[in-house]
Amino acid sequence: MIVTLKKSCTEEQLKDLVHWVESQGLEAQVTRGNFKTIVALVGDTASLDTTLLSRLDYIASVTRIQEPYKKANRKFHQEDTVIELNNHLKIGGKNFVVMAGPCSVESEEQICTVAKRVKAAGATVLRGGAFKPRTSPYAFQGMGAEGISLLLKAKQLTGLPIVSEIMDISKLDLFADVDIIQVGARNMQNFELLKELGHCDKPILLKRGLSNTLQELLMSAEYIMAGGNERVILCERGIRTFETYTRNTLDISAIPALKELTHLPVIVDPSHASGISRLVPPLAMAATAAGADGLIVEVHNDPAKALCDGPQSLTPDEFDSLMGKVRSLLPLTQKVMEG
Amino acid sequence: MIVTLKKSCTEEQLKDLVHWVESQGLEAQVTRGNFKTIVALVGDTASLDTTLLSRLDYIASVTRIQEPYKKANRKFHQEDTVIELNNHLKIGGKNFVVMAGPCSVESEEQICTVAKRVKAAGATVLRGGAFKPRTSPYAFQGMGAEGISLLLKAKQLTGLPIVSEIMDISKLDLFADVDIIQVGARNMQNFELLKELGHCDKPILLKRGLSNTLQELLMSAEYIMAGGNERVILCERGIRTFETYTRNTLDISAIPALKELTHLPVIVDPSHASGISRLVPPLAMAATAAGADGLIVEVHNDPAKALCDGPQSLTPDEFDSLMGKVRSLLPLTQKVMEG
Amino acid sequence: MIVTLKKSCTEEQLKDLVHWVESQGLEAQVTRGNFKTIVALVGDTASLDTTLLSRLDYIASVTRIQEPYKKANRKFHQEDTVIELNNHLKIGGKNFVVMAGPCSVESEEQICTVAKRVKAAGATVLRGGAFKPRTSPYAFQGMGAEGISLLLKAKQLTGLPIVSEIMDISKLDLFADVDIIQVGARNMQNFELLKELGHCDKPILLKRGLSNTLQELLMSAEYIMAGGNERVILCERGIRTFETYTRNTLDISAIPALKELTHLPVIVDPSHASGISRLVPPLAMAATAAGADGLIVEVHNDPAKALCDGPQSLTPDEFDSLMGKVRSLLPLTQKVMEG
Amino acid sequence: MIVTLKKSCTEEQLKDLVHWVESQGLEAQVTRGNFKTIVALVGDTASLDTTLLSRLDYIASVTRIQEPYKKANRKFHQEDTVIELNNHLKIGGKNFVVMAGPCSVESEEQICTVAKRVKAAGATVLRGGAFKPRTSPYAFQGMGAEGISLLLKAKQLTGLPIVSEIMDISKLDLFADVDIIQVGARNMQNFELLKELGHCDKPILLKRGLSNTLQELLMSAEYIMAGGNERVILCERGIRTFETYTRNTLDISAIPALKELTHLPVIVDPSHASGISRLVPPLAMAATAAGADGLIVEVHNDPAKALCDGPQSLTPDEFDSLMGKVRSLLPLTQKVMEG
Repeated sequence: MIVTLKKSCTEEQLKDLVHWVESQGLEAQVTRGNFKTIVALVGDTASLDTTLLSRLDYIASVTRIQEPYKKANRKFHQEDTVIELNNHLKIGGKNFVVMAGPCSVESEEQICTVAKRVKAAGATVLRGGAFKPRTSPYAFQGMGAEGISLLLKAKQLTGLPIVSEIMDISKLDLFADVDIIQVGARNMQNFELLKELGHCDKPILLKRGLSNTLQELLMSAEYIMAGGNERVILCERGIRTFETYTRNTLDISAIPALKELTHLPVIVDPSHASGISRLVPPLAMAATAAGADGLIVEVHNDPAKALCDGPQSLTPDEFDSLMGKVRSLLPLTQKVMEG
Repeated sequence: MIVTLKKSCTEEQLKDLVHWVESQGLEAQVTRGNFKTIVALVGDTASLDTTLLSRLDYIASVTRIQEPYKKANRKFHQEDTVIELNNHLKIGGKNFVVMAGPCSVESEEQICTVAKRVKAAGATVLRGGAFKPRTSPYAFQGMGAEGISLLLKAKQLTGLPIVSEIMDISKLDLFADVDIIQVGARNMQNFELLKELGHCDKPILLKRGLSNTLQELLMSAEYIMAGGNERVILCERGIRTFETYTRNTLDISAIPALKELTHLPVIVDPSHASGISRLVPPLAMAATAAGADGLIVEVHNDPAKALCDGPQSLTPDEFDSLMGKVRSLLPLTQKVMEG
Repeated sequence: MIVTLKKSCTEEQLKDLVHWVESQGLEAQVTRGNFKTIVALVGDTASLDTTLLSRLDYIASVTRIQEPYKKANRKFHQEDTVIELNNHLKIGGKNFVVMAGPCSVESEEQICTVAKRVKAAGATVLRGGAFKPRTSPYAFQGMGAEGISLLLKAKQLTGLPIVSEIMDISKLDLFADVDIIQVGARNMQNFELLKELGHCDKPILLKRGLSNTLQELLMSAEYIMAGGNERVILCERGIRTFETYTRNTLDISAIPALKELTHLPVIVDPSHASGISRLVPPLAMAATAAGADGLIVEVHNDPAKALCDGPQSLTPDEFDSLMGKVRSLLPLTQKVMEG
Repeated sequence: MIVTLKKSCTEEQLKDLVHWVESQGLEAQVTRGNFKTIVALVGDTASLDTTLLSRLDYIASVTRIQEPYKKANRKFHQEDTVIELNNHLKIGGKNFVVMAGPCSVESEEQICTVAKRVKAAGATVLRGGAFKPRTSPYAFQGMGAEGISLLLKAKQLTGLPIVSEIMDISKLDLFADVDIIQVGARNMQNFELLKELGHCDKPILLKRGLSNTLQELLMSAEYIMAGGNERVILCERGIRTFETYTRNTLDISAIPALKELTHLPVIVDPSHASGISRLVPPLAMAATAAGADGLIVEVHNDPAKALCDGPQSLTPDEFDSLMGKVRSLLPLTQKVMEG
């Protein structure tokens, strides 16, 4: 960490600073320049609260050299994290996972039909929303507890592990038999929720917030990991940009960038990223080619039942076709898909 | 609401659409063009879920003409909302409110000292954080329940009503004697929290999210109001932009824009917006000149106790001086400040 | 085009509007709603200046249904544009082009060495900057006219056609023997330059601006095409977002989105998009998998001559290796690479 | 400037680096930490090209402590720059300037009528566009040379100095009698244009680009100043954000921030910033209250001639009323308005 001092900083203030730095178990190395005096903090500064320093009125700026996350940091954990579900499915490392299913659970028939179709096509995890974060209070908010029950029926029927989104700590009990708990983009910095999930024994699928940086995503992962739960799967799902043709903008660089910064698995959601089903296959291919550890894709069942077809969902046939292409591409990456 | 159809839309699909629109109590007026056929939905479409429509695969686009919020909409509620606290302080309308206090409650002495100073300078509400949303799990997370108790002591001492941030529904009981409950920027779309606060009998200070639009802010207000609690105060506190000199960018246009769109009071937080105490006075003056209904300003007590001085907080003397300037400016706006 | 009127609009104003619309060769269809009256403009509105309408004070909003570009619009030109260079190299359609070379031309030896290496690896166009847009007036601004001469020597030596960036109309004569003229991101809306290039008989490589939308990019292409030069190659080179780990954010969705909107070829610059050479191969693979018509990649020659190595440039060996991977991927796309 | 080295950096590479730093007339101070070795560059690094350093492959990061602009930097030029026009009007320092006029010059009658009205209301400079940067090639591009002639007639008639936008170097001769040359937002990084204007003897009104940072704005000012022309007026005119209610977002913090960073005058354009005439007065008041050195406001003449009324332009009466309010506010700032 590099601290630059204001010209107004007195010798006494500098001495105070050096003393405080040493009290934190760090070493302070002082460099005096013509324009600025610089103090380099040498040692493990990852868990140091920089705001404490930047608040000192004789300090001009504080620049981190070391990342502020530790448990999620690849520097301190070189090997890829591989997360194993109860059915022994592995996520991370050389394993490529495909999670698929409808945006919302709508009925037993719907979720079971989709589950069978996506399993047949090669998906290894079933997704489905029971609690839906909606911008409008007047929009459908999901089936709630009943949605979770229907997902569990589909799990029983197909053997597919399930992933579903939690929106509030108070609902945690309902997720007892859910295999992976998803934290949505709008809750990426719901720190109370993250802390609680840090004490939970299930893998967490953590989606990147719409305007958050990779470092902020990793700090949110760190919240969960700091609580003891190190089974975090990161998900790039598109960020907000000025482009309006697509709903969001898939940050494809996030894949190789996160692979450098962290050992956690990184999957991609091309459905929410684009909001347009026609764009899902090229984005899914791109994500696979860029080295993602998997995909999470929206698939709906019944294009005829028009009012429920998401504009960003694939039909089962389109998903079948996409899975064929992804399978042809995988040998060029270093990943393998189960089943 | 304007719906444009794809060329592929059949007569039967159009008939289905018109039928569905009518079943929602709306009228459908069809215009056939050379390139596109357009259906105008006439009636009260505010609470219609547009995604239901946009999901139909023969629909090219759905454009709202009417805003999707109703209770927060000035069109249906022309007069300014005026919120009255238990001590009869009024917020909104012609009243200018100043909320001031430290970022975090740190000790009884600190909060009481600051409370007395900001009251003397003219503040009419005391702010102080007990629960702090922090990007890093390793940073100070606030004093929690004890922080609330200390705020209540300062309230008793000075008579100032208090405002403090809630981060999770489970803590709601602790806010029984808090006068205004704040929802922070990162929780603006924590819909479960908003729903719960909709059933609460206290004014809610709702801060705009870092990358949210005014419409999204109003939709979040609508969540609270739809639950029955119509006492919502909106707060512009800076948005995320590419500028890095300031921590965020104060969207000054949000003030007159929100005054057009809604009847709810709009206050401004120049401290979080800039992150630099030197910039707080010019931004506070600008916000006042632009027609804000009030300010929420960070003031710390003891510049000598250096490690606690926020770089964005004013000293009590600086706050005094700012209040003098704001008072000179108010006669040019149409607002008055109590006391 | 959909025009919504304000409540205050009088019958006479509406009549004036309808009259004006008809005078533009369009039809006006009026729909009266409870809240708003809507006028649909039916006919070819692509070249209509919407600001003329939005300036009328009785108009609430103007929404385009039809795109404002025509020559670049796939709706009016279904087949992919294929651009043929003097050496018969084809760009667009089923052809995959790879342009490679150094960021800046630095010396005859440098450009010739790199040219031979990238040709051997499979590149079919040589890139090299002679005029460099630099944020600082104190940074190296390129070799200018001499840089162009050196590029022409490398062209003579290898037979590779060359692409180089123009920064001002006054330098156009120097580009007489350059095969493709590049317009950089910062000049995407330098409309005087675009107009001039519209009268030129060379293909133009038009880079997307750092914060521009796809529609704005296509409007800039339209400027060139409206002048008569329809040989425009679009280039996605990363946009500005809040992410700071990468220099820019590659908008991978731009590839399939542009393929829907326009018939022009779309290539990708993974070097400027990321600013980090380690990220260039995964982004190049992603772009290829997403259906790009080609790549433009920075390759430098001499890693030992340290001060000239761009952090975003590949070494010739790294480029060789990337080309091998791209070649394995191409059969999965519908593209072929010459040579 | 702080350079952090990669772990892989050898002693020899470090020695090379120190040698190179010293060859640039700077001192290199080396600090070895557990995780990183840091080299502080001490001396005048303002005109150092950091890319030269960041390109070295043993360097992890380069962080500027000193700003990369020098002539525009308040650190090296403490007093406010005051620019005096030929008619002795002063811009900067304690002087508050109001530039007003139509978006585009449309006819002699129009520009002369508006000129008289804005002069009567208190404006001291006349603005008017002759060359208009338009997103669409099909939109009105301005009257060009004839527009400049009409502006000169209005100048002769009223005595008001004039400001107008240049879009290309080749038109510079037409600006011989224009008092202030404006560089528009889209040309802020048209470096060839900036260089040329650096050799010109007229004040330059430099508008901030839609997505540019304050530092980039100051670097563009530096381009002009490095050429010898130090009479640069900066203009904040709104930046691109996710908000769509306003056309752009006025960055009000830019005013006090620029006042800290530079000695150049800073004016504000509330018309382009909002794109809505109703919002112009509150934004103009906010800008004045925040310490701006002036305003540039769009005023059109004839609201009845509807098709030419910009939605962001004030009528002369509205401008009159705004000027009255600005005059009441000025005594609270430290500025005075001539006339």
